[in-house]
Amino acid sequence: MIAWFNGELLPLGGVKIPATDRGFLLGDGFFETMAAQSDHVVRFDDHMARLRKTGNNLGLKIPYSDKEIREAIHEVLMGSQLLNARGAVRLTVTRGSGPRGLMPPLEVKPEVMISASQAQEHYSAAKVKTVSVRKNEFSPSTQIKSLCYLDHIFAFEEAHAQGADEALMLNTSGHIAEGTISNIFFIKGDNLFTPRLEDGCLPGTMRSAVLDMAETIGMAVFEESLTPEIIQHCDEAFLTNSLFRVRPIHELDGRTMPAQHWCEKLLKALVESE
Amino acid sequence: MIAWFNGELLPLGGVKIPATDRGFLLGDGFFETMAAQSDHVVRFDDHMARLRKTGNNLGLKIPYSDKEIREAIHEVLMGSQLLNARGAVRLTVTRGSGPRGLMPPLEVKPEVMISASQAQEHYSAAKVKTVSVRKNEFSPSTQIKSLCYLDHIFAFEEAHAQGADEALMLNTSGHIAEGTISNIFFIKGDNLFTPRLEDGCLPGTMRSAVLDMAETIGMAVFEESLTPEIIQHCDEAFLTNSLFRVRPIHELDGRTMPAQHWCEKLLKALVESE
Repeated sequence: MIAWFNGELLPLGGVKIPATDRGFLLGDGFFETMAAQSDHVVRFDDHMARLRKTGNNLGLKIPYSDKEIREAIHEVLMGSQLLNARGAVRLTVTRGSGPRGLMPPLEVKPEVMISASQAQEHYSAAKVKTVSVRKNEFSPSTQIKSLCYLDHIFAFEEAHAQGADEALMLNTSGHIAEGTISNIFFIKGDNLFTPRLEDGCLPGTMRSAVLDMAETIGMAVFEESLTPEIIQHCDEAFLTNSLFRVRPIHELDGRTMPAQHWCEKLLKALVESE
Repeated sequence: MIAWFNGELLPLGGVKIPATDRGFLLGDGFFETMAAQSDHVVRFDDHMARLRKTGNNLGLKIPYSDKEIREAIHEVLMGSQLLNARGAVRLTVTRGSGPRGLMPPLEVKPEVMISASQAQEHYSAAKVKTVSVRKNEFSPSTQIKSLCYLDHIFAFEEAHAQGADEALMLNTSGHIAEGTISNIFFIKGDNLFTPRLEDGCLPGTMRSAVLDMAETIGMAVFEESLTPEIIQHCDEAFLTNSLFRVRPIHELDGRTMPAQHWCEKLLKALVESE
């Protein structure tokens, strides 16, 4: 596999992060996971917009243009022989090195890394389990795809130990937040429900794309606070992320969900829009 | 500066973390900050006990004995010319490299790094400000000194922008939790109060040492849920960590706290116990 690190193309095994990097020492960084299809990155502009917004939140300017990033991804995909596959591209940005302590250095030299691997073409319907780990809706980093994933690792392991493919996390008020690598949606009739961002979920690029697409194909869309009761009353439920697009849920907390009518419609429309 | 990385002594600038390391990619790791005084690490056994407990929580065995770690720290301090200074030692452990995704690899090869820098001999009394960032008392990683420090960075920056030296974070229920790099204590009469661990604070090694020492010097000790009201009614307040030991607070949310009677007694007793 080939990676791109601060402007240089290298074998992935040759990329070495300095031990003084704040991404490594303090989780002080963020990333994007993007799907690559044939020779282009799906929803590249949406990903770059979120990436730069996160950078601004952290007072960190990414020193490459969108064009440079796009070309770098192309080189990584080509070097990794993924141009004809579905690729999972990861773009990682850290605040670079600094002295001891939490205070960011005045002059930031970010580290930027791009790597890629082969993604699945198709994801089977998922079994999902609500876990004990809660999302913190009062945390500024909840809305950032930051490097701080330890809570999500705990959540995933808890779900996996019960045979589930994904964990569902509530927030500290008991409302539904998100999965460990996905946003969650529920369908009742022609209505689509997903947690509002204030409830502690990531503003997923696919979450936005699904909300837009749902309206296009005739659904009514609701972003609101959702209690776990909706699990018992919905017709369908699904997960989203850039690689899944829409992944139907066939079992949620023991309740089986056979219907995938709208899920399939949405997935088809999203695939066609790529 | 000299560092120790997986058994090897190297210049700090020569330590390179693999780009596939889960500590770097996902914050999947933890660390200890220890004070070194002359040629020994203060409360070394307490730090190692917490480190190994955290490792067990994460299903990760640190592949070095306490004796090996102690010798490695000595070599780092000696190589960094810190043997006659007060040193700040950082021991970082990550879950090592793994494939894409949150699921930890079945066979873990941890990365272990030890670095050191010069610590201050004395810390002046601190100005502290309660910030908007909340600790998640429902998070399993709250009780772990994990690599996921982004929320603490946000909290520190918010306090620093208001001229404070440290941020005080409440938990999501509105109870007092901790500082960004410290535990917090309040004194009223001969009574010492600190948040219980369940309220979302780190089980600091110095927190434990202070609780023990306070009883020894005749204080009554209470670990309980504390509301911010205590800020207005206490006689003294202070922060603790391994480097500060006890750092008096002279101003908390605008209230000045001139008294440092017990703070000084505690600090003196702790310095003598080293």
